[in-house]
Amino acid sequence: LRSGFGEVVYCRGKSIEHFIKIFQSFYEKGVDILGTRASKEQFEALKAIVKEAEYDELSGVIKVVRSHPDKIGNIVVCTGGTSDIPVAEEAAQTAEFFGSTVTRIYDIGIAGIHRLLSQIERIGKANVVIAVAGMEGALPGVIAGLIDKPVIAVPTSVGYGTNFKGVSALLTMLNSCAEGIAVVNIDNGFGAAYMATQINRLAVKGNE
Amino acid sequence: LRSGFGEVVYCRGKSIEHFIKIFQSFYEKGVDILGTRASKEQFEALKAIVKEAEYDELSGVIKVVRSHPDKIGNIVVCTGGTSDIPVAEEAAQTAEFFGSTVTRIYDIGIAGIHRLLSQIERIGKANVVIAVAGMEGALPGVIAGLIDKPVIAVPTSVGYGTNFKGVSALLTMLNSCAEGIAVVNIDNGFGAAYMATQINRLAVKGNE
Amino acid sequence: LRSGFGEVVYCRGKSIEHFIKIFQSFYEKGVDILGTRASKEQFEALKAIVKEAEYDELSGVIKVVRSHPDKIGNIVVCTGGTSDIPVAEEAAQTAEFFGSTVTRIYDIGIAGIHRLLSQIERIGKANVVIAVAGMEGALPGVIAGLIDKPVIAVPTSVGYGTNFKGVSALLTMLNSCAEGIAVVNIDNGFGAAYMATQINRLAVKGNE
Amino acid sequence: LRSGFGEVVYCRGKSIEHFIKIFQSFYEKGVDILGTRASKEQFEALKAIVKEAEYDELSGVIKVVRSHPDKIGNIVVCTGGTSDIPVAEEAAQTAEFFGSTVTRIYDIGIAGIHRLLSQIERIGKANVVIAVAGMEGALPGVIAGLIDKPVIAVPTSVGYGTNFKGVSALLTMLNSCAEGIAVVNIDNGFGAAYMATQINRLAVKGNE
Amino acid sequence: LRSGFGEVVYCRGKSIEHFIKIFQSFYEKGVDILGTRASKEQFEALKAIVKEAEYDELSGVIKVVRSHPDKIGNIVVCTGGTSDIPVAEEAAQTAEFFGSTVTRIYDIGIAGIHRLLSQIERIGKANVVIAVAGMEGALPGVIAGLIDKPVIAVPTSVGYGTNFKGVSALLTMLNSCAEGIAVVNIDNGFGAAYMATQINRLAVKGNE
Amino acid sequence: LRSGFGEVVYCRGKSIEHFIKIFQSFYEKGVDILGTRASKEQFEALKAIVKEAEYDELSGVIKVVRSHPDKIGNIVVCTGGTSDIPVAEEAAQTAEFFGSTVTRIYDIGIAGIHRLLSQIERIGKANVVIAVAGMEGALPGVIAGLIDKPVIAVPTSVGYGTNFKGVSALLTMLNSCAEGIAVVNIDNGFGAAYMATQINRLAVKGNE
Amino acid sequence: LRSGFGEVVYCRGKSIEHFIKIFQSFYEKGVDILGTRASKEQFEALKAIVKEAEYDELSGVIKVVRSHPDKIGNIVVCTGGTSDIPVAEEAAQTAEFFGSTVTRIYDIGIAGIHRLLSQIERIGKANVVIAVAGMEGALPGVIAGLIDKPVIAVPTSVGYGTNFKGVSALLTMLNSCAEGIAVVNIDNGFGAAYMATQINRLAVKGNE
Amino acid sequence: LRSGFGEVVYCRGKSIEHFIKIFQSFYEKGVDILGTRASKEQFEALKAIVKEAEYDELSGVIKVVRSHPDKIGNIVVCTGGTSDIPVAEEAAQTAEFFGSTVTRIYDIGIAGIHRLLSQIERIGKANVVIAVAGMEGALPGVIAGLIDKPVIAVPTSVGYGTNFKGVSALLTMLNSCAEGIAVVNIDNGFGAAYMATQINRLAVKGNE
Ligand SMILES: Nc1ncnc2c1ncn2[C@@H]1O[C@H](COP(=O)(O)O)[C@@H](O)[C@H]1O
Ligand SMILES: Nc1ncnc2c1ncn2[C@@H]1O[C@H](COP(=O)(O)O)[C@@H](O)[C@H]1O
Ligand SMILES: Nc1ncnc2c1ncn2[C@@H]1O[C@H](COP(=O)(O)O)[C@@H](O)[C@H]1O
Ligand SMILES: Nc1ncnc2c1ncn2[C@@H]1O[C@H](COP(=O)(O)O)[C@@H](O)[C@H]1O
Ligand SMILES: [Mg+2]
Ligand SMILES: [Mg+2]
Ligand SMILES: [Mg+2]
Ligand SMILES: [Mg+2]
Ligand SMILES: [Mg+2]
Ligand SMILES: [Mg+2]
Ligand SMILES: [Mg+2]
Ligand SMILES: [Mg+2]
Repeated sequence: LRSGFGEVVYCRGKSIEHFIKIFQSFYEKGVDILGTRASKEQFEALKAIVKEAEYDELSGVIKVVRSHPDKIGNIVVCTGGTSDIPVAEEAAQTAEFFGSTVTRIYDIGIAGIHRLLSQIERIGKANVVIAVAGMEGALPGVIAGLIDKPVIAVPTSVGYGTNFKGVSALLTMLNSCAEGIAVVNIDNGFGAAYMATQINRLAVKGNE
Repeated sequence: LRSGFGEVVYCRGKSIEHFIKIFQSFYEKGVDILGTRASKEQFEALKAIVKEAEYDELSGVIKVVRSHPDKIGNIVVCTGGTSDIPVAEEAAQTAEFFGSTVTRIYDIGIAGIHRLLSQIERIGKANVVIAVAGMEGALPGVIAGLIDKPVIAVPTSVGYGTNFKGVSALLTMLNSCAEGIAVVNIDNGFGAAYMATQINRLAVKGNE
Repeated sequence: LRSGFGEVVYCRGKSIEHFIKIFQSFYEKGVDILGTRASKEQFEALKAIVKEAEYDELSGVIKVVRSHPDKIGNIVVCTGGTSDIPVAEEAAQTAEFFGSTVTRIYDIGIAGIHRLLSQIERIGKANVVIAVAGMEGALPGVIAGLIDKPVIAVPTSVGYGTNFKGVSALLTMLNSCAEGIAVVNIDNGFGAAYMATQINRLAVKGNE
Repeated sequence: LRSGFGEVVYCRGKSIEHFIKIFQSFYEKGVDILGTRASKEQFEALKAIVKEAEYDELSGVIKVVRSHPDKIGNIVVCTGGTSDIPVAEEAAQTAEFFGSTVTRIYDIGIAGIHRLLSQIERIGKANVVIAVAGMEGALPGVIAGLIDKPVIAVPTSVGYGTNFKGVSALLTMLNSCAEGIAVVNIDNGFGAAYMATQINRLAVKGNE
Repeated sequence: LRSGFGEVVYCRGKSIEHFIKIFQSFYEKGVDILGTRASKEQFEALKAIVKEAEYDELSGVIKVVRSHPDKIGNIVVCTGGTSDIPVAEEAAQTAEFFGSTVTRIYDIGIAGIHRLLSQIERIGKANVVIAVAGMEGALPGVIAGLIDKPVIAVPTSVGYGTNFKGVSALLTMLNSCAEGIAVVNIDNGFGAAYMATQINRLAVKGNE
Repeated sequence: LRSGFGEVVYCRGKSIEHFIKIFQSFYEKGVDILGTRASKEQFEALKAIVKEAEYDELSGVIKVVRSHPDKIGNIVVCTGGTSDIPVAEEAAQTAEFFGSTVTRIYDIGIAGIHRLLSQIERIGKANVVIAVAGMEGALPGVIAGLIDKPVIAVPTSVGYGTNFKGVSALLTMLNSCAEGIAVVNIDNGFGAAYMATQINRLAVKGNE
Repeated sequence: LRSGFGEVVYCRGKSIEHFIKIFQSFYEKGVDILGTRASKEQFEALKAIVKEAEYDELSGVIKVVRSHPDKIGNIVVCTGGTSDIPVAEEAAQTAEFFGSTVTRIYDIGIAGIHRLLSQIERIGKANVVIAVAGMEGALPGVIAGLIDKPVIAVPTSVGYGTNFKGVSALLTMLNSCAEGIAVVNIDNGFGAAYMATQINRLAVKGNE
Repeated sequence: LRSGFGEVVYCRGKSIEHFIKIFQSFYEKGVDILGTRASKEQFEALKAIVKEAEYDELSGVIKVVRSHPDKIGNIVVCTGGTSDIPVAEEAAQTAEFFGSTVTRIYDIGIAGIHRLLSQIERIGKANVVIAVAGMEGALPGVIAGLIDKPVIAVPTSVGYGTNFKGVSALLTMLNSCAEGIAVVNIDNGFGAAYMATQINRLAVKGNE
């Protein structure tokens, strides 16, 4: 099913041994591999064996990429604040791994809506937008109200108190009065990117 | 304590007899009376006795007003949608009852943020803003991000599903990243107006 | 913004007068109108004035359509059970109103997964799938695991006890391990259809 | 009451001294002992005294077994993912401790339902199935829909965000539309195994 | 799959037309039919067409039974209070419909534990026990602590305040320290009876 | 107000400096002092200064007692399991500190109700009972159903999964069908003991 | 067990037939009977048969009393607002039914704390206080901070929005920093009165 | 917008590098800087570079202040207990940073309401009050009932068990029956101070 999508490993909670075994078995098959939520320790164990492994510490994404086809289309990934960037990077790097061109537009949260308005034209050019926000999570709804492309909303666990580890942002997004918005699990940059890639492909290649 | 504030009756759930007894006892004292959450039936029973009683069916507010001092200052009451107007009217009429000038700016919710932006200058002139919103409840935060006056946020129970009868809007408002915002109970237009009136008086008269 | 999308009215909770006023103002502009969550009473008041108004009692959808462009693409709408059909019809009729071809595949819930498997090829041909389910809400995840098109999951409030009016289905969908799935509010057939239409257009016409 | 069931110790949170005292008193009585949720530290203190003590680090199960009667019947223990295996092993080893034959079928979660379908005949041969799953927790319901033996569902705390430490999986299981399913506490492999053993005995020996 | 189990219809929320259509189609096939959560109105519409239809108003169970095989084994259904009886009857009648002998032991809740103790021997003779309780829901756990047969716990929505429509009873049952207990959805007498029947069959006939 | 009750310090979260300062100021006044939720580190710092300070590591209770009046009456403190003993000891030692005779009856939880029944006569002789239980928390209700003295129920946070850190036990206790029971906060042995002491005094001395 | 306590019937949800049957069987035994949460319809059916039956519409309490022993001791029942009176009357009349002298002090909620302070001496004379409050539920804690007798706190479901039908008041009471307070279920006037009567008896008669 | 308000940095969760970069860029602009929720480690890194940086360990507030205009008006900051002081200090120092005169009145919680009453006149002189409380959180409501100035309520996460990390205090405040109160997020001293400063300015300078 996941043809053209490479292999994905959710690394959190996996022991080093188990983690290495999975990567090696995929590596031997010659496919590209994406690891999410990987610790530095996991990466270092992998690096010792697989030289071309790359790691982004901020998001915990590992990439082992050998094929380099052209990237297609345009997915905009944006965030409300700087604390949302780790989740946004999980999304952005996943989308790139799956072959999409990604435009990053970070820290445009509504506290100062003018920053967002100045970027809205650029955002509206995307085939699909991934909007990442914590705390009250209003960003995706505001964007969806201003553009006519699908917006995938990613609530983050950034915040405190009644944020309830992302629940506040999640509810905001599910209740958005704006049109053209759907939501994934809290902090699930990967899931947003997967669906965005599907949409981006449909926009570029149609339903092949 | 509530000098200059008249008497207030929370009518919901009170039997007609009890309701009438309370109004009559205040009426005989000669003070102005505000009733909130009153049913049409309660009002009609009152009207038969107290001719000058007025009723706003939308918000369920009853007023028995005999003093007519000038209204002071400026409180803006705004709403996200038209369904929030009953709560907004409870706020607006309470604030007027307590002697404040009220500016109503309804249905400027963020689904189309341009409507809000076109009103923002008018809103910013207030001494204090009451922002009423249901569903995702982003309006108060967006306003607070654009003006430098205190915003009292009123979540409403308008919505369905994960709105959880106003909880979604409440959480959004409590988690707002914007500055200068505080929140009252779901649908509590009265409470917002009371505090707004205190602030409006301070702005006009200082701490007498 | 909503160019080519007609006008939409959320009818629930609106007084007959208010409801009629809104429809009339849009009717006079000559645009197509979609009403969701309308009561029979609201529809009958409208019908007396606007002859071409149509009503689907099951879903509460009103349509006033005068333009009849060809429908494009393919959106599959499917449900777990028969009780989910009202929400599915809100989605299906919304998508049709906005110009998409819709394929309905109802009552294929996982209690008997063979019914679902026998339809999976048809489902996989869609540009995008709207999967509607109540109770445990597993259908969208199972579909997303079997096809490679985006799935928009709609939890419904169908169920009892620990279903908590749709919360159980919602959580299932947000936590799905399958790839290519995003979620809208409980019972929000309209929202799912709006986003599905955006994706369907991208698949047929690209990013114009 | 627990005749033929040996003695069981829930080790989590017990001080080494208290833990050792309990094990020793049972050991002196000559009965078999099962410890659940034991730490490595607890085990090592025990091992120093009781040579035949065995420990499974993954599940935290300790066994002190001196009687070796034949195992009877057939309990299938299966999991959705690899992260659910610790809980599954608590179940499997408990069932074995109490004298049941156990068949392990792990990592057949619905993300790829074909893996599950290829095993369903083997699963259906059990007297009773223990189905362990985290995240959206759909596995037990899907199995219950495909076989006609009782399924004991064990939600795990595996997941993040709206998983709420297993609540999402629990609700899915409680709301399953499939027939022949009941649920135990989150991560409670022991409880599932106890009841499965009771059923397995009934199936093999009837109500003696 | 449900061979020898007849057909089951969940009647709540179905329109009379839809309801009648389903019953008729099963009736024509000649199978036995069980309807749960049926209203009196639904039953009367059915009775006009299907003479042998029977109805239990307390539990809302409809039966259309033409085969009369001997009942087998022994399932005890017990309740904490008299308000739990509707749910218990849904369970008892479902179990009888599927061919099990049922022993009813109602109103033995723990407020007076002596009533329960005086019945415990009779309860312990069952192959499987269905224990139904609302409010604090302690009954199933107390029974499971006293007998060595599997107990299926059914929380009911009977209670008020912090009962939260059955959540309190559900949590009690999920957290029971007693062994040999598993839980179904709030008020789900049907689900408990289905699984109890599976176990009862295994006890009488083994794994055929 | 708290005449004859000594001084109480809630130690958790207090810095060593702050903690010592409070104890010293009370010590200089010559009153008896009770500290709850104290860490070993806090105690050791105190011990260096106040020689007669005593510490119970299990419950975290510190006592500095110089008056030794006779203890009066009879408060029974009982627990469901051994893990509840720290909370029970907070209660027992608080009650003793305030001058009550305490009878400890631990580990009589309902998993084996016979242990409880064998102690019930002794329990029933108390003036008031403090019943401490975690997990499903059924113990206080069972006791209240068997005796006619007031029972103060203390839910503990002992458990896992759907125990939700004591919420399950709390709800059980609030919903108990037995008569003569009231509840304090989760793990609040101190609060239970305070009220039990008030009742014990009334029973011995009447309303002086 | 309930010697000297008469018989109690919880009437809510019982059919007229069932309700009458229970009352008649107790009536024939010659004992006093207390019915709580009774509807007017239930009462009228009873009145037709049992002439001495009395009914309090506000609280839904039915009394059939033939013995008239002297009332003893002193229980104060107080409320925060007038809307809490139905619950308070359930408590007051229950306590009287069980033979306690009751002092009612209503509508002294903290909005104006001076009303409470002016009554505090009278309240402090009680053997035990039942404090009933809805909304934020602060009354019992404030009283407990001012007197040294046990306070039984009864949260009511009076309020709206984030009151969550009494949960807000319940949590306030469970978290009270004042000493000598325990809590019963939301709206459970009966339970509070039962325990208060036990304490009142101990204060007057000691542990007989 | 934030003219005259200086720059604010929310430090929690920011890496030392990122943190330093932000402070430096503001420092170079010559503006005053307030950092909230800063760790000691962050402060020390800053101190090495910016000599005039000050740090309050209790509240985690960093100040870099070079302008020293006169402070205006009067904001009272009060707390229920000593554990609430860190949050109160975040509020107090923020208000001072923005140019308000602050009066601190700590540890006047309602357990002993007399302490509060003895301070109420001083509190009532403020232009606006920030009332900080954990546990049951009754303090702000009691104050608001006694004075006629706006009260901004700050729930804190101080407490345990059913406090649910501040939720109990939050709900109390949202449901307060007193007039002139609004609420901010749990532990959000900063947000309260910002709004209090706006109100204080209005009181001193009017709406300039
Ligand atoms: N960050 C993530 N969040 C959610 N799901 C993920 C994430 N990363 C990977 N996955 C999913 O987890 C699967 C791999 O799980 P596993 O076999 O346990 O490594 C992938 O196929 C993805 O569907
Ligand atoms: N809509 C409202 N929401 C919240 N509180 C209200 C409302 N209307 C009135 N109140 C308060 O309720 C008090 C009157 O309560 P009562 O004495 O029960 O009529 C007034 O003094 C107000 O403080
Ligand atoms: N374990 C406890 N749980 C709840 N409240 C307590 C506890 N221990 C002491 N207290 C209360 O906390 C007060 C002391 O608080 P503090 O002044 O912060 O030390 C005492 O007077 C008691 O009312
Ligand atoms: N303690 C706090 N709680 C909530 N918001 C804060 C706090 N401190 C600062 N802020 C807000 O966070 C903004 C700075 O965020 P950042 O750009 O991430 O440093 C400030 O402008 C404030 O609006
Ligand atoms: Mg849009
Ligand atoms: Mg602002
Ligand atoms: Mg897929
Ligand atoms: Mg099955
Ligand atoms: Mg058992
Ligand atoms: Mg009792
Ligand atoms: Mg007290
Ligand atoms: Mg006030």
